[in-house]
Amino acid sequence: MNAEIIAVGSELLLGQIANTNAQFISERLAEVGVNVFYHTSVGDNPARLEEVIKHAEERADLLIFTGGLGPTKDDLTKETIARSLGVSLSMDEEAMDSIRAYFEKVGRVMTPNNEKQALILEGSVPLKNDFGMAPGMVFQQSGKAYILLPGPPSEMRPMFSTYGVPAVMRLMKRKEVIHSRVLRFFGIGESQLEADLEELIDRQTNPTIAPLAGDGEVTLRLTAKHESKDVAETLLNELESEIRQTVGEYLYGYDQDSLEGVGFRLLKEKGLTLAAAESLTAGLFQSSLASIAGASSVLEGGVVCYQDSVKRNVLNVREETLKNYGAVSRECAIELAANVRTLFKSDIGISFTGVAGPEAQGDLPPGTVWIGIASGDEEPRAYKLTLAGSRNGNRSRTVKYGWHYLVKEYKA
Amino acid sequence: MNAEIIAVGSELLLGQIANTNAQFISERLAEVGVNVFYHTSVGDNPARLEEVIKHAEERADLLIFTGGLGPTKDDLTKETIARSLGVSLSMDEEAMDSIRAYFEKVGRVMTPNNEKQALILEGSVPLKNDFGMAPGMVFQQSGKAYILLPGPPSEMRPMFSTYGVPAVMRLMKRKEVIHSRVLRFFGIGESQLEADLEELIDRQTNPTIAPLAGDGEVTLRLTAKHESKDVAETLLNELESEIRQTVGEYLYGYDQDSLEGVGFRLLKEKGLTLAAAESLTAGLFQSSLASIAGASSVLEGGVVCYQDSVKRNVLNVREETLKNYGAVSRECAIELAANVRTLFKSDIGISFTGVAGPEAQGDLPPGTVWIGIASGDEEPRAYKLTLAGSRNGNRSRTVKYGWHYLVKEYKA
Repeated sequence: MNAEIIAVGSELLLGQIANTNAQFISERLAEVGVNVFYHTSVGDNPARLEEVIKHAEERADLLIFTGGLGPTKDDLTKETIARSLGVSLSMDEEAMDSIRAYFEKVGRVMTPNNEKQALILEGSVPLKNDFGMAPGMVFQQSGKAYILLPGPPSEMRPMFSTYGVPAVMRLMKRKEVIHSRVLRFFGIGESQLEADLEELIDRQTNPTIAPLAGDGEVTLRLTAKHESKDVAETLLNELESEIRQTVGEYLYGYDQDSLEGVGFRLLKEKGLTLAAAESLTAGLFQSSLASIAGASSVLEGGVVCYQDSVKRNVLNVREETLKNYGAVSRECAIELAANVRTLFKSDIGISFTGVAGPEAQGDLPPGTVWIGIASGDEEPRAYKLTLAGSRNGNRSRTVKYGWHYLVKEYKA
Repeated sequence: MNAEIIAVGSELLLGQIANTNAQFISERLAEVGVNVFYHTSVGDNPARLEEVIKHAEERADLLIFTGGLGPTKDDLTKETIARSLGVSLSMDEEAMDSIRAYFEKVGRVMTPNNEKQALILEGSVPLKNDFGMAPGMVFQQSGKAYILLPGPPSEMRPMFSTYGVPAVMRLMKRKEVIHSRVLRFFGIGESQLEADLEELIDRQTNPTIAPLAGDGEVTLRLTAKHESKDVAETLLNELESEIRQTVGEYLYGYDQDSLEGVGFRLLKEKGLTLAAAESLTAGLFQSSLASIAGASSVLEGGVVCYQDSVKRNVLNVREETLKNYGAVSRECAIELAANVRTLFKSDIGISFTGVAGPEAQGDLPPGTVWIGIASGDEEPRAYKLTLAGSRNGNRSRTVKYGWHYLVKEYKA
């Protein structure tokens, strides 16, 4: 089955927004084995849209439209498709009810143009809009299938994932359902991960394994197809254990997990509090923790010790340490972690000291970083990083490594 | 002149990347008055690309291609256009020289497939690639114009802005050049700004005024067209002064400026140092300063005082203040700012205390924030914010307001 994705909206042609809908839909279609050969964007213009429809019918089996389902005069996707296919529009009562309910809930009067949103192509199957008013729909005629989706990504994405993809599977007469699981790794590069799993990736057909790298992390999307949800789950579980045997130590979470989210959950479960001494990261680590609602059960606070004078005067790093080893050293990282823990009376003290760049600091090239951790009755310890990014790349990578070491220490 | 933007690359159809190039080019074309009626994406497939070219020639005067100019076998945009138009490819010696120079500079051996990148359509005008190897080009035949651009946005954007837009102006036989200036505002909403400038925006034809809102900021893009660069500059200056008369107090910078960048420059020029006490922002303010290379000339450091105990024990906020007014109060903000200034021996102390959300804190709804500033011999002062965003929206908006007040105080 070959698909063309058609985005309708003059705002795309004026460059006011990027067509991220086409990317999202293409990614989902690739997962279920539908070829996408063309993306087309066209404005809110019936004649040009009609020409686009005719042309797409010549080269695709499945036409997926985004945008133009709203209440205003500019929204003409349904009307134009109806005319082009010689089909009339009819009211979808379920959609109409939910539009009325929406206006009642927000206490506003429904203007008549909103009724237009409940119109669907006669004979089509509506797709429920869980995050907005206009329903989507699936229509079939003369061997072609047409899927209409709303334009706002916040409505389109859940509608397509939840109802659109299963509809595509039905169109393809496939009985299988698709189950995906994303495994999230940190501390290993994409090429290393792929090399370690090469044999597994080559061998695998169901589930498939798709690696993706970004922002210092690597993810693997495992996608299983099977008629039974339970069997698909089992297939995913089996593949995950095989992957864990090779690179399990780098696996920190699933799907929408973040390193700080996983770290926060671990510390919260164990009832541990944390304080940080941050030099090059200058608050970025603590801010990553505070980005999570409920952070106050873990985060005491900390010190941004950007200057050596602050390391000395506020965090009591010994003069000899700074003189003999410098601020970017194992010794300084360890004192910072231990002393911020004492000062803030927290269970864990963590410290970050390093050269963000772009300039070197004496002999130390940009990307030289030490992370110190003090906790429990053990000796405080420090980890050295050698990063190769930009100034802010190095700073945010350092924060991720901080979480990585905390997760490693506490996940057992 | 009507344009169609054609993106070539299977990675687009697989959903691996979004077509942000089409957005960027459309925005620039809208500024110079070129209508864009279609965006098309097609894969690395000569037959389908050729069909797309033929179809676009029927409906557009100007065909702009992105992608497929690189060295690999997949890169076939030039070859396919050449075949479709019956034109041959020839070596652009200048491009070849700069490709050779690149390989010498990085000390790698040039593989022969890189020569392909210096091929251009015979009779075309090359567009220089200042950030990569493959040149772009402009070609004209049978009343149609063809512009070929590289795919990576880091190469395409500067090439199109610097060489592509002037080439489009020449194609349109326009002698004018386009001069744009972006004015950046903070502390005023988009609708308020547009209302304040309504008469001016309606009246204006050259320069034009285009407002854009995002991330708590509003920008106005002023675009002047004139044959003389000096006259265009004068037109922009005159319009800017008119705008300043109405909303000048919210204007903080130009073009690529950021609030923290402008604030940092001001403090650095005046030789002032800064320390921060951060509760809800938890280091985000200090991190925004440390994101700038050279921040150490201004930033001493600071304290993340997430817990009241830290406000009390590390920053010496008086017990009575916390008891009588609470941590989220003018009084607490002022003590935090004054005390962090003393502790860190900085010229300026700034503090942030508030309710990030999503939960209220006692009577105080999420978004209630106090920012304190202590500097010079004046009384420390505090500003109240009432924000309506998400938890992290409120946190980052608070940081921007911190810079906004610092810029206001120090720009005189």
